[in-house]
Amino acid sequence: MLSVEDNKLLTETGPNTLMGKLLRRYWIPALLSDELPEPDCPPVRVKLLGEKLIAFRDSNNKVGLLDELCPHRKASLFFGRNEEGGLRCVYHGWKFDTCGKCVDMPSEPPESSFKNKVTIKSYPCRDVGGIIWTYMGPEDEMPELPILEWTLVPKSHRYFSRRIQENNYFQAIEGGIDSSHISFLHRNIQRSKTDAQKALANDRSPKFEVSKTDYGLQIGAKRKAAEETVYWRITQFLMPWYTMIPPFGPTRGGHAWVPMDDEHCWHWSFSWNPLEPLKEEELAEMRSGNDLHASLIPGTFRTVQNKDNDYQIDWELQASGQAFSGIRGIGMQDAAVQESAGSITDRSLEKLGTSDAAIIVARRVMIHAAKGLENGETPPGLDTSKQRVRAASVMLPEGIPFQEGAKELMELKPQDYLAAENE
Amino acid sequence: MLSVEDNKLLTETGPNTLMGKLLRRYWIPALLSDELPEPDCPPVRVKLLGEKLIAFRDSNNKVGLLDELCPHRKASLFFGRNEEGGLRCVYHGWKFDTCGKCVDMPSEPPESSFKNKVTIKSYPCRDVGGIIWTYMGPEDEMPELPILEWTLVPKSHRYFSRRIQENNYFQAIEGGIDSSHISFLHRNIQRSKTDAQKALANDRSPKFEVSKTDYGLQIGAKRKAAEETVYWRITQFLMPWYTMIPPFGPTRGGHAWVPMDDEHCWHWSFSWNPLEPLKEEELAEMRSGNDLHASLIPGTFRTVQNKDNDYQIDWELQASGQAFSGIRGIGMQDAAVQESAGSITDRSLEKLGTSDAAIIVARRVMIHAAKGLENGETPPGLDTSKQRVRAASVMLPEGIPFQEGAKELMELKPQDYLAAENE
Amino acid sequence: MLSVEDNKLLTETGPNTLMGKLLRRYWIPALLSDELPEPDCPPVRVKLLGEKLIAFRDSNNKVGLLDELCPHRKASLFFGRNEEGGLRCVYHGWKFDTCGKCVDMPSEPPESSFKNKVTIKSYPCRDVGGIIWTYMGPEDEMPELPILEWTLVPKSHRYFSRRIQENNYFQAIEGGIDSSHISFLHRNIQRSKTDAQKALANDRSPKFEVSKTDYGLQIGAKRKAAEETVYWRITQFLMPWYTMIPPFGPTRGGHAWVPMDDEHCWHWSFSWNPLEPLKEEELAEMRSGNDLHASLIPGTFRTVQNKDNDYQIDWELQASGQAFSGIRGIGMQDAAVQESAGSITDRSLEKLGTSDAAIIVARRVMIHAAKGLENGETPPGLDTSKQRVRAASVMLPEGIPFQEGAKELMELKPQDYLAAENE
Repeated sequence: MLSVEDNKLLTETGPNTLMGKLLRRYWIPALLSDELPEPDCPPVRVKLLGEKLIAFRDSNNKVGLLDELCPHRKASLFFGRNEEGGLRCVYHGWKFDTCGKCVDMPSEPPESSFKNKVTIKSYPCRDVGGIIWTYMGPEDEMPELPILEWTLVPKSHRYFSRRIQENNYFQAIEGGIDSSHISFLHRNIQRSKTDAQKALANDRSPKFEVSKTDYGLQIGAKRKAAEETVYWRITQFLMPWYTMIPPFGPTRGGHAWVPMDDEHCWHWSFSWNPLEPLKEEELAEMRSGNDLHASLIPGTFRTVQNKDNDYQIDWELQASGQAFSGIRGIGMQDAAVQESAGSITDRSLEKLGTSDAAIIVARRVMIHAAKGLENGETPPGLDTSKQRVRAASVMLPEGIPFQEGAKELMELKPQDYLAAENE
Repeated sequence: MLSVEDNKLLTETGPNTLMGKLLRRYWIPALLSDELPEPDCPPVRVKLLGEKLIAFRDSNNKVGLLDELCPHRKASLFFGRNEEGGLRCVYHGWKFDTCGKCVDMPSEPPESSFKNKVTIKSYPCRDVGGIIWTYMGPEDEMPELPILEWTLVPKSHRYFSRRIQENNYFQAIEGGIDSSHISFLHRNIQRSKTDAQKALANDRSPKFEVSKTDYGLQIGAKRKAAEETVYWRITQFLMPWYTMIPPFGPTRGGHAWVPMDDEHCWHWSFSWNPLEPLKEEELAEMRSGNDLHASLIPGTFRTVQNKDNDYQIDWELQASGQAFSGIRGIGMQDAAVQESAGSITDRSLEKLGTSDAAIIVARRVMIHAAKGLENGETPPGLDTSKQRVRAASVMLPEGIPFQEGAKELMELKPQDYLAAENE
Repeated sequence: MLSVEDNKLLTETGPNTLMGKLLRRYWIPALLSDELPEPDCPPVRVKLLGEKLIAFRDSNNKVGLLDELCPHRKASLFFGRNEEGGLRCVYHGWKFDTCGKCVDMPSEPPESSFKNKVTIKSYPCRDVGGIIWTYMGPEDEMPELPILEWTLVPKSHRYFSRRIQENNYFQAIEGGIDSSHISFLHRNIQRSKTDAQKALANDRSPKFEVSKTDYGLQIGAKRKAAEETVYWRITQFLMPWYTMIPPFGPTRGGHAWVPMDDEHCWHWSFSWNPLEPLKEEELAEMRSGNDLHASLIPGTFRTVQNKDNDYQIDWELQASGQAFSGIRGIGMQDAAVQESAGSITDRSLEKLGTSDAAIIVARRVMIHAAKGLENGETPPGLDTSKQRVRAASVMLPEGIPFQEGAKELMELKPQDYLAAENE
């Protein structure tokens, strides 16, 4: 449990909050590159950390992210004309470039210098690895873009999606680093029985070991597998919102949970095969909303299964044991339990057990970093040279620490993946 | 009218309010027995007095009512697995019995004693007379279940329904004890003209006489019927939210209005024939939403006619006089006027007349009981030996007090109804 | 920009606000006469300046506007029976005349005098020129009905509509007096090229000249047209919410924006041909929601194009230049930019230019009048002898002040329009 004060600190991410200031020191995945498919295409609304913004790709393929409202009389730039190197407000024609500079103000006399005094809030963007990233922090503190395996592989090797989850970002992160719930929420008695799956089914109270690292946390969850053999699932948590999922096969998965506002977050899911293209049937599954991904209501980022329809729970499916919860889809199972805990869980009312060890540490790390920043410390996890890591899923002899036994597996080496050429 | 303070006292029912504490001293009709049709069936959401709860029927047919959220990490038990004597949270498998005890905690090591330290808020339940009752007050103050005629008759003799009404519970009670409005709101010029109906149509300003009793109030409304004959309609109000309606025929009716939260109440309607089974055509009418009952939007407790569609008012029907209000259905006519007065009527702005006598007394009784409880007094109306009463509808010679002339009719005697065998 | 305090003063219109008191000193267009088509027809809900009201046309064709809620027990009079000279509450039959007098109280004994002590809030109404007007101010300060050209012409010469706009009334007024945005928001490259349209397209930074008058403001916007010729568009702003639009042809237009509450306003559009009946094809266009008017969701005053569907923006239409914004309909173009600025624009964040001159003056006039009233001054613009004015659209030689060059055009003289006979 957390005190009411610490819960606020952890979950409030607006511009003037401690956590909001911390999160603004990291690059933020803002939208999929494909959402702005070509120069001068229609602009897109993006809400991040409580701020309403408009993304656009200008005539020169440069991506901009501006305040939603035109500084003149506050009309929305969502309706703006994206043309000739800038986004033009349709109310009076004021035009802004990707840097927020007012580059045309045709409603004022040509001789006027008023244009030069007007800017709009803008955030720098990068279009890398299929994702448009933005940085919302102080200009002189801008770090390098993070190194994450899924952004390094060729386009044919990856499938990414984003959707709105209707709760605070940290509730989702807690689900993401909680290996314990896999033995319950995601249990499916029909699943083919590999040794790993048998261990997940048979040992439902994993022991957690959590190591702090430069980039975040290594979270080992140990389950009995066979005589003198244990099954380790090692999740990577990278500051401030990424997880890498211990793999079940060659296609790997990861997430990011970015605050939209304090009651909603962007749930990003990343699937990739490091060494070869995704198979057509894999892609079809992902596009249809299976695996980590979800089916969306057309024209929105809201899932078809959602809290208003109880995630289309099927009580017979639950009774049959084919889905422990009766809810279809791993992502929707997570959404159901996380959203049902309220937009912002009241953590002062929880009862945490030993299986919540990773969560307890992660909260402490985040709160510590937010307070540290306020006291002049550098935010952790910004050194890209330390970010070449992987999650791991491995059988080890009992008694070997995972940090040692899985050391190799947790390092991302150039031969582990086929690097994307410049796209 | 009431002062703003007394209006708050009367209408606020959360756990720490004066009225909330009073109401929690009575058994509460929580749901229909049929909503939990068999052991281990899916759980059901129930909100009562501002508290979100989950009802379930366990493997041994015992009904439990638990806090909606699992104490561990606050996932909703609505998605829970109802199995082997308890309700199991799908997030990490914690399982609770109907008493709120944690009976399984598989996410923790088998040797852990943490399980014994965890409980969930639970309220005792009884499944009696077609209704699941709960008691939300202090354990050592639990009264006996109330004796109400409609819970005593065999299943074949009764039809009960519940629905959400979108206003405070007491506004609905006020309608229920207000015999005066029958001459207006429920008037139908086509209704066949019995002497009683003639009196209702002809004398639209009944004189009220209200007697306080052990169980609540006897509310007599007197109308001129013929030379030296008066028509009495005597409504019974039983603490804290029941009414018995003066009958028009052999099938009788009653209501309960239970706070869901302060802006919504559970509108219960009870129809029963004390001496013989309900006829198939009566049941068909009730199921189709006529009589006291209402047609619901499938999968919800919201009525098809509701404030968003102006209760499907039909102005031609109004003009024709076949329905004074133009709204179809007695229950929907009540809902329209009561809900239109706001979620919580501002009683400081009313202008009450002599026809509001019963309402004035009922408010006083409730406020007095709530304040009395705070001062250590016993809540009124809990003595079940005093509850064997009936509403009455009777012609009496002028000058005879109804308490005397209708004495017999107002007593519920064993021969008046066929008692249910143990179901 | 405005200070936060002045923005509140300008935009808050409830009964006890400075601006609310000012606006209540003017006659208010409340509904279309046709919405109450005949004596004793169903009543209609109208919300004005934050007050929920019910309009009805009594048996004698007199229109009343009453508080929505019956003073007895606060049921809505929307469900009321409009019969025999009054509106009767369906709950207990209390009946009120158009003056708010309780004329029948059948739930009380015939001998009771309680009826004489009960009134309901009522506002005087006039049914003139196709509009039902009301006056919500102090009785002894009631002015004459305003003289506005569109209320003077015969029924066959006019088409009026009203709809809800989802923002504060003053934001809409600002759009109405802002000639500058026509060169952008309403631009259509296909429009046939009159000299006026050419000037609008070519000179997009008009010079504003604003004259204060007895009735409000004359707002001249000057654009270069040809050598030594300028194109003047002169908008009339009549206190407190009317505009007259500089005409493009024989059919003229005007608006009123009346607060519904502080986050919504009634957007009135008036089209009329002063000298001859509207042509069938013009009327068909107006009824279909084109020109100034808008297509409504049946049974509501909400537009089909609205903020929930991004006004059905068509990005290809935008790219083609046939509609600068990609939104169809002049009214919907205005709604999109005005509503997108928020229910109540935060004017402390604006950056105003020279093209906002009229807006700056209009704000000042309104704020000054509201403060003046509080200090005992007479509200401006109530003298009907000064109201016979017109908007104008005219080419003038450079150097001639519009007040002089367009003097004739701006006066409304009897020969300019065919006067309505008494309807």
